[in-house]
Amino acid sequence: MRNQKAYLDCLQRPQAQMLWREALTRCGYFADLPSETVIISESLGRVTACSVYAKQSVPHYNGSAMDGIAVFAPDTFGAQETEPIRLQLLSPDTPFAPGGCYVVDTGDPLPAGTNAVIMVEDVHFVDGSAEIIAAAAPWQHVRIIGEDIVANELVIAEHQRIAPVDMAALLAAGLEEVDVIQKPKVAIIPTGDEIVATRAELRAGTILDVNSPMLAAAVTAWGGDPHRHPIVRDRREAIKQAISSSLECNDMVIVNAGTSAGRDDFTSDVLADLGEVLVHGVAIKPGKPVILALCKGKPVIGLPGYPVSAMLTAELFVRDILLARQKLPPAETIEIEATMTKQVASTMGVEEYVRVSVGNVQGKMVAALLSRGAGLLSSLTKAQGMIRIDSIQSGLAAGSTVPVQMLRKSRPEQTILAVGSHDLALELLGIFLRRRLEHVSLTCANVGSMGGIMAIRNNEAHIAGVHMLDEQTGRYNVSFVNKYLPNMTGSLVHFATREQGLMVLPGNPKGIHDLNDLMRPDVSYINRQRGSGTRMLLDYELQKSGISFGQIAGYEKEVGTHMAVAASVAAGTTDAGLGVRASARALGLDFIPVAKEQYDLLLNFSPDDERLQVIIEILQSEEFRREVESLGGYELGNAGEIVSLVAEV
Amino acid sequence: MRNQKAYLDCLQRPQAQMLWREALTRCGYFADLPSETVIISESLGRVTACSVYAKQSVPHYNGSAMDGIAVFAPDTFGAQETEPIRLQLLSPDTPFAPGGCYVVDTGDPLPAGTNAVIMVEDVHFVDGSAEIIAAAAPWQHVRIIGEDIVANELVIAEHQRIAPVDMAALLAAGLEEVDVIQKPKVAIIPTGDEIVATRAELRAGTILDVNSPMLAAAVTAWGGDPHRHPIVRDRREAIKQAISSSLECNDMVIVNAGTSAGRDDFTSDVLADLGEVLVHGVAIKPGKPVILALCKGKPVIGLPGYPVSAMLTAELFVRDILLARQKLPPAETIEIEATMTKQVASTMGVEEYVRVSVGNVQGKMVAALLSRGAGLLSSLTKAQGMIRIDSIQSGLAAGSTVPVQMLRKSRPEQTILAVGSHDLALELLGIFLRRRLEHVSLTCANVGSMGGIMAIRNNEAHIAGVHMLDEQTGRYNVSFVNKYLPNMTGSLVHFATREQGLMVLPGNPKGIHDLNDLMRPDVSYINRQRGSGTRMLLDYELQKSGISFGQIAGYEKEVGTHMAVAASVAAGTTDAGLGVRASARALGLDFIPVAKEQYDLLLNFSPDDERLQVIIEILQSEEFRREVESLGGYELGNAGEIVSLVAEV
Repeated sequence: MRNQKAYLDCLQRPQAQMLWREALTRCGYFADLPSETVIISESLGRVTACSVYAKQSVPHYNGSAMDGIAVFAPDTFGAQETEPIRLQLLSPDTPFAPGGCYVVDTGDPLPAGTNAVIMVEDVHFVDGSAEIIAAAAPWQHVRIIGEDIVANELVIAEHQRIAPVDMAALLAAGLEEVDVIQKPKVAIIPTGDEIVATRAELRAGTILDVNSPMLAAAVTAWGGDPHRHPIVRDRREAIKQAISSSLECNDMVIVNAGTSAGRDDFTSDVLADLGEVLVHGVAIKPGKPVILALCKGKPVIGLPGYPVSAMLTAELFVRDILLARQKLPPAETIEIEATMTKQVASTMGVEEYVRVSVGNVQGKMVAALLSRGAGLLSSLTKAQGMIRIDSIQSGLAAGSTVPVQMLRKSRPEQTILAVGSHDLALELLGIFLRRRLEHVSLTCANVGSMGGIMAIRNNEAHIAGVHMLDEQTGRYNVSFVNKYLPNMTGSLVHFATREQGLMVLPGNPKGIHDLNDLMRPDVSYINRQRGSGTRMLLDYELQKSGISFGQIAGYEKEVGTHMAVAASVAAGTTDAGLGVRASARALGLDFIPVAKEQYDLLLNFSPDDERLQVIIEILQSEEFRREVESLGGYELGNAGEIVSLVAEV
Repeated sequence: MRNQKAYLDCLQRPQAQMLWREALTRCGYFADLPSETVIISESLGRVTACSVYAKQSVPHYNGSAMDGIAVFAPDTFGAQETEPIRLQLLSPDTPFAPGGCYVVDTGDPLPAGTNAVIMVEDVHFVDGSAEIIAAAAPWQHVRIIGEDIVANELVIAEHQRIAPVDMAALLAAGLEEVDVIQKPKVAIIPTGDEIVATRAELRAGTILDVNSPMLAAAVTAWGGDPHRHPIVRDRREAIKQAISSSLECNDMVIVNAGTSAGRDDFTSDVLADLGEVLVHGVAIKPGKPVILALCKGKPVIGLPGYPVSAMLTAELFVRDILLARQKLPPAETIEIEATMTKQVASTMGVEEYVRVSVGNVQGKMVAALLSRGAGLLSSLTKAQGMIRIDSIQSGLAAGSTVPVQMLRKSRPEQTILAVGSHDLALELLGIFLRRRLEHVSLTCANVGSMGGIMAIRNNEAHIAGVHMLDEQTGRYNVSFVNKYLPNMTGSLVHFATREQGLMVLPGNPKGIHDLNDLMRPDVSYINRQRGSGTRMLLDYELQKSGISFGQIAGYEKEVGTHMAVAASVAAGTTDAGLGVRASARALGLDFIPVAKEQYDLLLNFSPDDERLQVIIEILQSEEFRREVESLGGYELGNAGEIVSLVAEV
């Protein structure tokens, strides 16, 4: 059970990468590259297989570089303002005679016998002759043959990526085709009994194969030519057959997944049969159960099944190999320094990669942790950066400055970090902002109202959505802001009045009418997390009605957003949950109103920040109001008004 | 003649760009974007036309996140090591009963009645029941519905470029297609009587259309969809017709060229007929005669004809417009600081763009000017960076530090700057180096032997090729190095013995036998520039033979490389020129030996620089020796040997 053992003795990532690279170098994987011939107009971005030499000189003839007259330079010597020289104008078909000249346009071939051109501006034409008042230096204003490229000279060196100007140079140098390195063919084999290819086959317990298109696109982006194999069931022989046949006509094979050591995980055993398993298991999170193998001199990579793990391990163990195979330099990542807003715990001995949002808040670049689950695609689509927590670290302290590898074309200077209470309308604000300010993006982290206030206090966010009821005053937000943000430089502005209520299945099958029904033994509830405004509202309303928490089945089950509550109810997993009307409407649920609340925004920008003004303008606009109110349960009558904090004190 | 006037009153580049951008914004060019629907697996790199919302939740069911048993959490409360609890194992088809549990694998749907999973490692199976020694928290190890993405939530915002992970998220969220912004269609219309489409039509006075494929590739690289129009002759109506019909089905039209104010330059007049010429002529070099026009609400750009001008103006006036039309951010350029090795003069009032090689010599980043001609494609293919000389500057001083916009994936740290005497074998050294050291490139600037020595003295180059004959000692190079580089830290190594001789047409039609024949009135000569070793050799040999310079027709015509000499002879423009045998062989010329000379290399690297060692190894290798000697006229017997400088003193 060699592989089993290898899996237990996880390698560290840098060692695994080194071993991988060395093994592939040793077997000649980066040396012996198949090439193909393409016509030059289709060679953009391809890599030359060998050095390309000019077949003809550029220019291919001596030509005039100006409009003017072509002369024999010695005939002009001595000409000056006081002693002009007259040259006889010859017609193009007349052979050259001393003292003669020809009219030429730019690009015209230099007539035999002449060796210089005088610009038309410097010529005075009189009576069939050309009068000049300055001598011409030999070869002046002549583009001589080979001035740009000489026949047989190197045009483009081998292993160079062809750019548009290279194409022009190759064509000018007389080439019509060019030998380029073949795009590496990469087979992608999805495996698993639970994987299905189409939405039609989807049911509880099956998973759509989203990894294959994702990996195929990544391979394309890295210059490879992906070949997607049909889904293979968890049968040892079937997997072996798929890998074996894919090795025939591909330069690399990716198997996804079956890479753990579970009872249906055959990938490692199959690869040991077909070749040599170099690495099984790397001390990284996510992505530990990765397999690196060499079969028939080709790399076979087993990637784990969770999408985030699959993508991360592909970046670590596929990307640079694929680029090197095309003689392209490794991918460059842009790294910036940012301050962690929250502490991140991590296991010693394991290198962990966490996804973050990054933005500049009041001059400080901050990184806010996104969800860490290996299955959470949304954490990748929302991520702007990735932080690598070294295996010798036990985590990152809140407030520590760490290097962040920026993803895609992230523009942290243009990112607005919104935190606090989750609200659908906040996402709409982001979309409106992007329409007004190009390339600005808004990312929402749902940490509840109290979390939002704390983030503003620590300058860790630009916007916080808050809806906190002060039981004493019966008013929302103001007293909390005064208490926790006594020195706030930003402002609190009205966003919307929202309806909160119980979401239940359509038709209300359990007959739930108010909070009292939550005490019924046949009714299960799903709660929001502590610190969220909705949780505070529930607790306040329960107290008013004299209901104790212990009487509610499911009170302890917490989720982070209105939509997660709605989704749980819609799936029939729970019978009721408190949330805004818009969430109920989004999933087609019935809604039993409980209370109206004021949802406001804390804005934390420098007073001269363009974005502040634009946000206020959007909030006050008729268009935004209409779009938010159409979500249901919102009233935006006073949206964009600045809430007076002084009057409250 | 409004356009004529506009052309005379050249606009400054920043004003032209602002005017251009504003006019296009005003006419709604960046707002009203056609979209198209593509299947998600083909959406990589496309830009979303609108925000995309989830059609289903991800995960779409409550599933086990572990292999283990699914339980109802309250049944497990109180379990501990001393008081284990036994749960009855139920078969999958049995309905749940209190105190029961089910075996589940990762991904299995959570059986009705259960609300938590206990990992298999924590379960002891005995007699058809599962014994546990710790309580399960409700919802532990359960992937709840919507945990990743909730139905109707935003998956990808509008105007975002789709990455592989986005594709996975869209598919998982139940989408099969996505609306993306159409790739802007860009017509490219080549115009000109002298332009031909194929090599077969090429003759003196015609030029191959290399700009159209170059511009088409650039449009592709910038996300557009190029449409190449057949070549249009210089007829006003034909050009008008071509532009008019191209405007029907394209989002942008590029006309190339006819943009000057010459007698055959109709572009500007035609555009004034079809719409509004906003700009004709920008104070930049190269690229001044650019035309920016709006016709039928679409941008029409007239680009100048020289390839370097066409490419530069396309980058300035096409690229960002095309990106903005796709809602993509402007192209980012990487800028580094480098020291100019030579003075560059430039005209005040004109913004000039010059191409440079960039490399790090002994810790100093230096930029070496490449040829400046607007027609020199090779200056673009060899360039690693571009320097913008502001219009208020009259040039750049030698030794001044200037910002360099780096081109493509230039890696200045890995660039070796070779200067000095031109030699074909030096290019071969570059190719061998690249094979040994990935991504290292060698760029050659031909400044002659003396120029090479000076560049090494000023730490402006890594390698200089020198072949300077000391008339006193009869030896090569050593005395010059001792004189000009008394404190040299690098070394002088042998490269090759080369044959120098007269190159003449095949069959030697003029019957040239030695240098004396150069005095014949029917023989024209082409010379190398002052400071080059070949020029020194000629002058030395002429002196020996008692020939004065004035007796040689063409002595004053200087070119910069052996190959340029050879090309001139091959074209029949001149009858003879002195150069190395390899150059004659490359162009199939006859060769009359004159002398043998020692061509050495000055190497200027830190002693611990890996590249120094690799160069010596290559020079000494059998493979390199064979390949250089096959060029003809070279002997590499002592290549790679370090030349003793001390013994000479």
